[in-house]
Amino acid sequence: MIDFSCDYNCGCAPEILAALTAANESQHATYGLDAISARAKEKIRAAVGNPDADVFFLVGGTQTNATVLSSILRPWEGVVSAASGHIAVHESGAVEATGHKVLPVEADACGRIEPETLRAYLRGFYADDTYPHMVQPGAVYLSHPTEYGGLYSAAALREIRATCDEYGLSLFVDGARLAYALASPETDVTLPLLGKVCDVFYIGGTKCGALLGEAVVFRRSQKHFFTAHKQRGALLAKGFLLGLQFDTLFSDDLYLRLGRQGTECALALREGLRAMGVAFRPESGSNQQFPVLSSEQLQKLDGKIGYEIWQRLADGSAVIRLCASWRTTREDVDAVLGALRV
Amino acid sequence: MIDFSCDYNCGCAPEILAALTAANESQHATYGLDAISARAKEKIRAAVGNPDADVFFLVGGTQTNATVLSSILRPWEGVVSAASGHIAVHESGAVEATGHKVLPVEADACGRIEPETLRAYLRGFYADDTYPHMVQPGAVYLSHPTEYGGLYSAAALREIRATCDEYGLSLFVDGARLAYALASPETDVTLPLLGKVCDVFYIGGTKCGALLGEAVVFRRSQKHFFTAHKQRGALLAKGFLLGLQFDTLFSDDLYLRLGRQGTECALALREGLRAMGVAFRPESGSNQQFPVLSSEQLQKLDGKIGYEIWQRLADGSAVIRLCASWRTTREDVDAVLGALRV
Amino acid sequence: MIDFSCDYNCGCAPEILAALTAANESQHATYGLDAISARAKEKIRAAVGNPDADVFFLVGGTQTNATVLSSILRPWEGVVSAASGHIAVHESGAVEATGHKVLPVEADACGRIEPETLRAYLRGFYADDTYPHMVQPGAVYLSHPTEYGGLYSAAALREIRATCDEYGLSLFVDGARLAYALASPETDVTLPLLGKVCDVFYIGGTKCGALLGEAVVFRRSQKHFFTAHKQRGALLAKGFLLGLQFDTLFSDDLYLRLGRQGTECALALREGLRAMGVAFRPESGSNQQFPVLSSEQLQKLDGKIGYEIWQRLADGSAVIRLCASWRTTREDVDAVLGALRV
Amino acid sequence: MIDFSCDYNCGCAPEILAALTAANESQHATYGLDAISARAKEKIRAAVGNPDADVFFLVGGTQTNATVLSSILRPWEGVVSAASGHIAVHESGAVEATGHKVLPVEADACGRIEPETLRAYLRGFYADDTYPHMVQPGAVYLSHPTEYGGLYSAAALREIRATCDEYGLSLFVDGARLAYALASPETDVTLPLLGKVCDVFYIGGTKCGALLGEAVVFRRSQKHFFTAHKQRGALLAKGFLLGLQFDTLFSDDLYLRLGRQGTECALALREGLRAMGVAFRPESGSNQQFPVLSSEQLQKLDGKIGYEIWQRLADGSAVIRLCASWRTTREDVDAVLGALRV
Repeated sequence: MIDFSCDYNCGCAPEILAALTAANESQHATYGLDAISARAKEKIRAAVGNPDADVFFLVGGTQTNATVLSSILRPWEGVVSAASGHIAVHESGAVEATGHKVLPVEADACGRIEPETLRAYLRGFYADDTYPHMVQPGAVYLSHPTEYGGLYSAAALREIRATCDEYGLSLFVDGARLAYALASPETDVTLPLLGKVCDVFYIGGTKCGALLGEAVVFRRSQKHFFTAHKQRGALLAKGFLLGLQFDTLFSDDLYLRLGRQGTECALALREGLRAMGVAFRPESGSNQQFPVLSSEQLQKLDGKIGYEIWQRLADGSAVIRLCASWRTTREDVDAVLGALRV
Repeated sequence: MIDFSCDYNCGCAPEILAALTAANESQHATYGLDAISARAKEKIRAAVGNPDADVFFLVGGTQTNATVLSSILRPWEGVVSAASGHIAVHESGAVEATGHKVLPVEADACGRIEPETLRAYLRGFYADDTYPHMVQPGAVYLSHPTEYGGLYSAAALREIRATCDEYGLSLFVDGARLAYALASPETDVTLPLLGKVCDVFYIGGTKCGALLGEAVVFRRSQKHFFTAHKQRGALLAKGFLLGLQFDTLFSDDLYLRLGRQGTECALALREGLRAMGVAFRPESGSNQQFPVLSSEQLQKLDGKIGYEIWQRLADGSAVIRLCASWRTTREDVDAVLGALRV
Repeated sequence: MIDFSCDYNCGCAPEILAALTAANESQHATYGLDAISARAKEKIRAAVGNPDADVFFLVGGTQTNATVLSSILRPWEGVVSAASGHIAVHESGAVEATGHKVLPVEADACGRIEPETLRAYLRGFYADDTYPHMVQPGAVYLSHPTEYGGLYSAAALREIRATCDEYGLSLFVDGARLAYALASPETDVTLPLLGKVCDVFYIGGTKCGALLGEAVVFRRSQKHFFTAHKQRGALLAKGFLLGLQFDTLFSDDLYLRLGRQGTECALALREGLRAMGVAFRPESGSNQQFPVLSSEQLQKLDGKIGYEIWQRLADGSAVIRLCASWRTTREDVDAVLGALRV
Repeated sequence: MIDFSCDYNCGCAPEILAALTAANESQHATYGLDAISARAKEKIRAAVGNPDADVFFLVGGTQTNATVLSSILRPWEGVVSAASGHIAVHESGAVEATGHKVLPVEADACGRIEPETLRAYLRGFYADDTYPHMVQPGAVYLSHPTEYGGLYSAAALREIRATCDEYGLSLFVDGARLAYALASPETDVTLPLLGKVCDVFYIGGTKCGALLGEAVVFRRSQKHFFTAHKQRGALLAKGFLLGLQFDTLFSDDLYLRLGRQGTECALALREGLRAMGVAFRPESGSNQQFPVLSSEQLQKLDGKIGYEIWQRLADGSAVIRLCASWRTTREDVDAVLGALRV
């Protein structure tokens, strides 16, 4: 069965496995203080275009979100997130477990916080005389791409940054699937732009070709984040395992190439489906596609193509998720389209 | 340089790398719900001799300690630990970050809580009329072996269990280096015994031949631990990576063999050093040895043998840590002894 | 100026001040272990009709909500609340600060969670396959009356209790203004009913004639709540101050009489305003009334009657809050109506 | 029975009761934003000699300690305290419940942290290469007087301040019994000195003549402490109740006079006991005295004098606590001495 169900259900890119194998017998300084991690950080600083960036390698997304947010918020502050955001829904209250409320705002159809929504929220918050009795907004959490494949534009991020500056908020971007966004022709957001507008963001490894790992990039030096992430159980004893993967991902543009593979396949799939008259809910320009298929169409896929039901609709049709990844091939795409054409 | 500095500064046992390589291309259910993890859990249940045991795979030790303890304690409870215990000293307050106090008691020279110490502590606690104003002891944390290589006997663990029962405490054993304890001729503690006396314990992978990973074994089913460890950022998206390592470790007695390698080398080293008149602080029956060496002896090792200074003494001598591991060979041991004999 | 702005902006009922004065010179056991507190608890157990009820006196509402909820929830659990509930909006994230998410559900116009809403929420929660990745609902929080004066019926509370039983949730009722609800002819909820359907509820003192204080009533003995509320800073050193107030409130039906004064005045006011054709948003059967007044009507009140603007409407009219209390008199009510009739 | 058992087991100074009675019928702005609280803050700022001081009124000591510390510490920081300090022993883990470890250091016999002890602790902490894996010291907690009546000198506080500056720590002084320290001839610490050396301290009301209440004094404006203390359940709805008490305490030197009454009685008692050859454990210059009495002496007190057993000694003698307060009279002191002389 050809798999479009998920982008984190197999191992890693061959280059990473090779690097892992090569390094397996050597000794490495522990807790991420090894030479390979140092080299990987240097490469990331170069890719981000900020020699002062402070880079840390963590293991997974929920861990990263809670660890970063708890390190930048003060106790009376919460984090503004799309109501559909990952931290608001699917992280088992990890942020709240560190004492901070997630402050939900309405997102657009593809899960983005529109700049005007954020501004209106903050204006409204401070217009309410009782605001000192409420959780103070201390940071904004975005994901790029969103959980629904939504992509921010550089202009939108700059506007959100300006609003954050106006109200004294930090900006944090969850880049669990960042490779696929960087590869999309439908957004002009780059690593240097993220490095500039975000106080902190992360470059996702787990879903973008690594075995596991997320590279957290702070705009400025973070004297105490080492202790902070140790405290949250996010410091890996064999830190070189993470550094090594990012060292590989940031060699020979591998990270961008893996992202391109996933996104190009997804967009080819979108084009093919559109040509068949299939609608999308929502539209996405990155590696996850959400076509609405009839029950007949779904039957045609069953047993051939792995996919995920996103939302069952009343008439037997459904929104499904077809998730391309760095491993997806054009043949896989053709297989989906072929199955539907039968 | 022959490395005795640390047991977590390289990759994994070749069997694990091979298994990882073999599984890299396949698809696996996510979040630890995959078939390999299921198989690994079955093997661990068998090894522990408890078909009802509930097994979870987490990434690292600090994460495991804080996640497990916060899931078994109530807000007004703390955890009794040796004052020198890892959670009390070297986890950056991970337990306190979940709201719970670590209640330190004096350990013996090799870091163990003596059964009588625990009993005296609890007796004293409840004898103080003001105890309702204090953190209530809710669990006991031990490590086996301890941070100083100390080993509990089965009798000591049974006694501690009885005291826990008497006072309504849970018993949690940190087995970050458990393989080396299981292999030691100087303790009769077995996996089935741990499965019986502990409410929960873990089988360390990171320091015992895996790339990363700790297998948490609860005596009884834990309906909500899935959510609990997701909340603490301890649920790995590609959970099969952990399951696969423990599946390998619990095939063909690999876990025990790796432990034996480390402990036998350490004991051979101890024997050789003792024969030279070297003293130990403390004595250890597992993979870490803490000889007291003179400055002349230290000079003989420098540049040849990797070790860690544990405590500098006034006369220029020092307690050092020589840490054998699953990778250490008899040749490595001979190299240390040979260097000192020169 | 006649004050309808608030029910907690002055001191206490004269009976309480007298009792306080009488007890001022005597010695009392500390931390609520005094004889007066014991007597007050006995009276509350009798009023609730549950000799096994465990009663604690805390200082204020936010403190009580966070302390009680954190003592009954497990780390992975959150509390279901109306989106407009006090814990969800106006407690500065006190519940989240203890690590628990507030799970908002839509309330009806007067702030109540309808039994069907709760059932639908829980059904939907468990129908979503991803629910183990979400905060688990562990308790339901209601206020009676609500922040908007809404009143539950006994039937509604029984239905909610049944749903809680079905899904294994605790039921907690915030009774900050309970006296006014108990006095309302528009609900059949009584103290014994609350004692029966709630796992825990509280009898508000601060807004109902006391200087300060809330009496928390648990259906069953709570061995560790003494320590739990000490830990949250909610144990008063001079606990007799709270016990004494509730002893007075539960003597000669004072609590009910104070509630009746507030609610009867509010309902007389409602009747008078209705007779003038005034609408309410929402309708309320307890001590807070929310009439919609035109700008002309507002001007007539200004300088004569203290009130609070609740919501400004586009045409210059506004929803205001007229808050009667145990101190309000029929003359005060007539003054409002008279001012509007001019 | 003449009571020396406790300084918080009765009501308040008559002046406070009178003020409370006088204000009972009036309306006051809520949440501490009332005119009386404003006036009280002004008086405290004047007494402290710092017009920029930010003053808040909280209800009790444990609440104040946890609320203040959690507002000044970052997640990875803990608070250095005497091992015998109130936050380390008798607050049910209130500080840990906010996520922060209490870092115990050895105190001298009367519970004080000696400046050199603090310096040595911090020097040692940073000399240990593994310190990034440990909780970072972020603040120092002292009590003046200590739980054992110990008094700091101005020189000691200045030295501790200098050490805090050197290592970047905040200094917080718990003044639950501050009135008695300010009145002692055995220390030169004044309110202006505390205002100068502390980042934050509090002026205890509960044990010094008020019904309840502690005045927290920050050296600099705290924009978010209103929200922070609301979040911890420490914001009183009827805040004027606290403001009014401190307004009274800081009128006509009442606070100092009440303190003087307690301390002078205690010192007279000490003198009388010393003249009888009684020893003290420890020596105290404030309102609590800790004489060692033989079993015969204890029998002479029994039934006549209320006291507290502090520590039973092997020979039947005991260290007891005789606690004078603002209510104690010279006649009470004579009664103790007379009983022993019989």
